[in-house]
Amino acid sequence: MSSTEDLDYPQIILQYSSGFLVSKVMFTACELGVFDLLLESGEPLSSDAIAVRLGTSTTGMERLLDACVGLKLLTVELTQEGALYRNTEISNIYLTKSSPKSQYHIMMYYSDTVYLCWHYLADAVREGRNQYERAFGISSKDPFGAMYRSEEEMLKFMAGQNSVWSICGRDVLAAFDLSPFSHIYDLGGGGGALAQECVSLYPNSTVTIYDLSEVVQMAKEQFVPPEEHRIAFHEGDFFNDSIPEAELYILSKILHDWDDDKCRQLLAKVYKACKPG
Amino acid sequence: MSSTEDLDYPQIILQYSSGFLVSKVMFTACELGVFDLLLESGEPLSSDAIAVRLGTSTTGMERLLDACVGLKLLTVELTQEGALYRNTEISNIYLTKSSPKSQYHIMMYYSDTVYLCWHYLADAVREGRNQYERAFGISSKDPFGAMYRSEEEMLKFMAGQNSVWSICGRDVLAAFDLSPFSHIYDLGGGGGALAQECVSLYPNSTVTIYDLSEVVQMAKEQFVPPEEHRIAFHEGDFFNDSIPEAELYILSKILHDWDDDKCRQLLAKVYKACKPG
Repeated sequence: MSSTEDLDYPQIILQYSSGFLVSKVMFTACELGVFDLLLESGEPLSSDAIAVRLGTSTTGMERLLDACVGLKLLTVELTQEGALYRNTEISNIYLTKSSPKSQYHIMMYYSDTVYLCWHYLADAVREGRNQYERAFGISSKDPFGAMYRSEEEMLKFMAGQNSVWSICGRDVLAAFDLSPFSHIYDLGGGGGALAQECVSLYPNSTVTIYDLSEVVQMAKEQFVPPEEHRIAFHEGDFFNDSIPEAELYILSKILHDWDDDKCRQLLAKVYKACKPG
Repeated sequence: MSSTEDLDYPQIILQYSSGFLVSKVMFTACELGVFDLLLESGEPLSSDAIAVRLGTSTTGMERLLDACVGLKLLTVELTQEGALYRNTEISNIYLTKSSPKSQYHIMMYYSDTVYLCWHYLADAVREGRNQYERAFGISSKDPFGAMYRSEEEMLKFMAGQNSVWSICGRDVLAAFDLSPFSHIYDLGGGGGALAQECVSLYPNSTVTIYDLSEVVQMAKEQFVPPEEHRIAFHEGDFFNDSIPEAELYILSKILHDWDDDKCRQLLAKVYKACKPG
């Protein structure tokens, strides 16, 4: 039951309505480099100075900065020289490109790709399929074919997934004691951030990243340092190729991509491959 | 200062990131008629039944309904016949088309028009102008020319503004005692929902809706009942045409559309027109 107050003034509905505005304000300030500039400058800056340095309109920048203040992503101080903006601690850690916990890449993936696909959510529900075709004019039968349609898109997606793990990967892997498992397969392990967290937390484990050939190539080139010998690679398609024996399989952010039949098929295959115990 | 917990797990950043997903889930359930169907049916329905009645895919509908449950826009009950969904009280009041407080029209305006314009927010900030051109291929020099590019778009916008007033119009007008004012102009009064709230709350007032010619025509045809003699109309462009004398002027949701110079120009004109006292 909702309280009468909620029914008179439906806070959640108004919040949900403006959710997309909030997302885009944060994504755009990231994209334009607002947080990077304020970190580098080491001192608060005026909206005019920020606009000049980032090559944007002054009115547009002022409105964007004030929206960020409202969202507590920036703070503003009114001085004799006018309003001066600076990053909050959270923005320094998560919204600057150079931070080890930067969420910049996942935000650019959401902002450029996912946001536009979700414009067609009603069509997706009507048709029961993804909307890469309407959003980007590319066939949507194979979702990963669409997602990996160019090196640039693949890199953005893999870097994005890695940045998510920089927040919660360690906590997820520490939730259970995985130290008894020495040989682990990360199915669909992508850019390998979870594998790296795993070998760092459990130094006696080796983790094999099992993913499509082009993903494995990209992971080796861009994400996993060659000197990390506890991480191995296996090129394959886990639906059509075999899954080698291991003591533990990680299926992280995989099942939500597929329908129930495909998931059952994959889980049965993993069950068969898994070493007893 | 943020707490260490916020810094380790940046709740607000994750919430802001998924804001657009939340908006689109609610907008899409509205658009497809989920809340209307559940109100009309008078009993909880399965996702299969809802999908059949609304002509959508079953998987797509099930995922949409479960997302609405997560957002507390629906409740679900697990029965022997499977999961059955029903509206929450808030959804019945605000998300069904037939409710007097329906937000359906503003949601469709946000979902179809505003969402796509905001995809180009970074360009808007760079260029300092709206993005109707990138989003819809129409010139963006005159924002209202773009917004009123077709009767359908104009109707959607006006109905949308009216639905916002159905939540808060009365509270806004009751915040100050306006009973001393008998002759009020609502500049940019659009579909007239605020004017109607005003004459209902202050029965001795007359309110003149001042708006562009085509908006006034639409307001007369679609929104303001002809028997409401306390509401009058004035066709004009408040920047280029004169503003008649009155005791009180309402400028509601107007100033945010214009830059500071235009706003100063408009406010000076209103100040000059206003009756002393």
